[in-house]
Amino acid sequence: MINERELKRFVEAVFIKMGVEHEDAADAAQVLVKADLRGVDSHGVARLKGYVRLWENGLIDPKATLKIERETIGTATINGNSNFGLVIAPKAMKVAINKAKEAGTGWVTVKNSSHFGIAGYYSMLALEHDMIGLAFTNASPLVAPTFGKERMLGTNPIAVAFPSGKEQPVVIDMATTTVANGKLEVAKRKKEKIPIGWVQSDTGDLSENPKELEVGGSLTPLGSTLTNSSYKGYCLSSMVDILSGVLTGANFGPWVPPFVPFLANSDNPVGEGIGHFFGAIKIDAFMDVKSFKKRMDLWINTFKNSTPLYKEQEVLIPGEPEKKKEEVRIKNGIPLLDQVKKDLNEIAKKFNIEKQFT
Amino acid sequence: MINERELKRFVEAVFIKMGVEHEDAADAAQVLVKADLRGVDSHGVARLKGYVRLWENGLIDPKATLKIERETIGTATINGNSNFGLVIAPKAMKVAINKAKEAGTGWVTVKNSSHFGIAGYYSMLALEHDMIGLAFTNASPLVAPTFGKERMLGTNPIAVAFPSGKEQPVVIDMATTTVANGKLEVAKRKKEKIPIGWVQSDTGDLSENPKELEVGGSLTPLGSTLTNSSYKGYCLSSMVDILSGVLTGANFGPWVPPFVPFLANSDNPVGEGIGHFFGAIKIDAFMDVKSFKKRMDLWINTFKNSTPLYKEQEVLIPGEPEKKKEEVRIKNGIPLLDQVKKDLNEIAKKFNIEKQFT
Repeated sequence: MINERELKRFVEAVFIKMGVEHEDAADAAQVLVKADLRGVDSHGVARLKGYVRLWENGLIDPKATLKIERETIGTATINGNSNFGLVIAPKAMKVAINKAKEAGTGWVTVKNSSHFGIAGYYSMLALEHDMIGLAFTNASPLVAPTFGKERMLGTNPIAVAFPSGKEQPVVIDMATTTVANGKLEVAKRKKEKIPIGWVQSDTGDLSENPKELEVGGSLTPLGSTLTNSSYKGYCLSSMVDILSGVLTGANFGPWVPPFVPFLANSDNPVGEGIGHFFGAIKIDAFMDVKSFKKRMDLWINTFKNSTPLYKEQEVLIPGEPEKKKEEVRIKNGIPLLDQVKKDLNEIAKKFNIEKQFT
Repeated sequence: MINERELKRFVEAVFIKMGVEHEDAADAAQVLVKADLRGVDSHGVARLKGYVRLWENGLIDPKATLKIERETIGTATINGNSNFGLVIAPKAMKVAINKAKEAGTGWVTVKNSSHFGIAGYYSMLALEHDMIGLAFTNASPLVAPTFGKERMLGTNPIAVAFPSGKEQPVVIDMATTTVANGKLEVAKRKKEKIPIGWVQSDTGDLSENPKELEVGGSLTPLGSTLTNSSYKGYCLSSMVDILSGVLTGANFGPWVPPFVPFLANSDNPVGEGIGHFFGAIKIDAFMDVKSFKKRMDLWINTFKNSTPLYKEQEVLIPGEPEKKKEEVRIKNGIPLLDQVKKDLNEIAKKFNIEKQFT
């Protein structure tokens, strides 16, 4: 178990060593460690070596600042200028929040960015401003469209956070595939088969092989099979790709620069970097904040107290499992897998940081 | 086969007989017949008797006008004052479009409305203004949350339409359940079983019975089973319910006034009517319209021409099957089932309209 502050300090030091400004490094560390705290281990410090790889490959300008290339009272188009997504995205979400103060809602597109960690983090930044927050991003092409064989789309997540009153906020953060790639990585590490419905082979057959993606297979869009409406997952992923990629000036579809090591960058990009789409909706623009929060608490309690199917498992609210995990991990610390500790120790060595994860 | 204009004239006449203003009746008829044209037969004139039933039950004020109860430069909160959803929604979407002209994006919440037909219709109203259109609504509670037994959510659709250049626009219009109730109605009519994954019984077991909802069962959220992430469908449906219900002042969750005849209205409502959420995003606020359309065409052609799994089935673009159906039906007319003709003839008789569907 490692204490969150200790882990954050280490991650911050790594980003500083890569040339990121101190304040930006703190932001980036905050996003990554928040993923570990919330139990989204696939998107936390386990991925630090992925960010280091991007930097080593010369794909990151760690000193770059954001440029607003176009704006209206309620919108902004931002060029991330090739900094880390983890540095760009917190700033872009803040622009959306400030726009919402003026225009009721704020919407920001970002191009020339890279992998930004957990989408949920950014949506949650809106909560303290009594706003609903939204965050989308496109991602490494690992998903074939319905009836398709080629991998054209990413796990393209949708994150939305709703403020509440006395209850915990409702936080949705989901890949638009049946499962995210992280679940395959876990199965690979444990040398286990995966359930039918998560991936298809390059012949379109459902597969139990967690390494299927490395031999041309693809993640299934949410819905899993045509009978159970996987074209809806394809639609959702397309929506995220168009908002995050086409509308931003970033790459889209099969051109999205990959984060996973087994895919190469396209040599004829159709835009700059990967893209994000952020939104902030000021509650007060639509309804008295106090009334809204009371209604949210009623929504939450009504769902929580609805009759469960099984005595031992109550109905959960979106974001509730992550919040519970966070409470435990703030108290007891964050567990790290041996492989992750090994990776972090190698990173420490690479950057001459005196730190040993044991 | 019936000609679309002939069908529209009849539907318009019915709404006028119920006391709706002429222009509003034309709007309502347009929405319903558009569903039939696009092949979404479950949401077209087959449902006219449902709207008549709402009116007969005294739930509709056909003369009511919309009231904007709160607004900012980019947002509006609308009270539909109990008119038909089919009358309220086209006007509300127009408000969103006009707001977007000023603020870059426009967002409108609606309460005190009723079933509004196909969500896709409203999202598509934005296209001719070079805007992205969004339309959400909550609906009759027919879906149990993950781990739950009680029906707490509707099929709560998400519709998004993206303008394009030379290609057809991308139009997403999907229930957040595995399938919409309309597919069960079709199976019932044909006396067929339904595939495993669409509905669960009130004990949580998957069922092949298309009448399962009438005996306490529920539609599964998109994803179908816990293994294949049905909690994501639950999350999406919750998002639509909170935006359309909680944020609007309408009813939400189990309190949403039902459209289906086998459910009763709640006697302790938490809001007024059902609710909708509309959005319009002006392309020009983010990017030159010409560039965007060129990029959209590239997106569309890239997906369309990607390698298919099977020689005989190319990859489809969201909205493409509906558009193709529309072209055929504009030319050849709309086929109506015998049961639907019978229902329409009864409505004609009820309102003394000289019209016979044969």
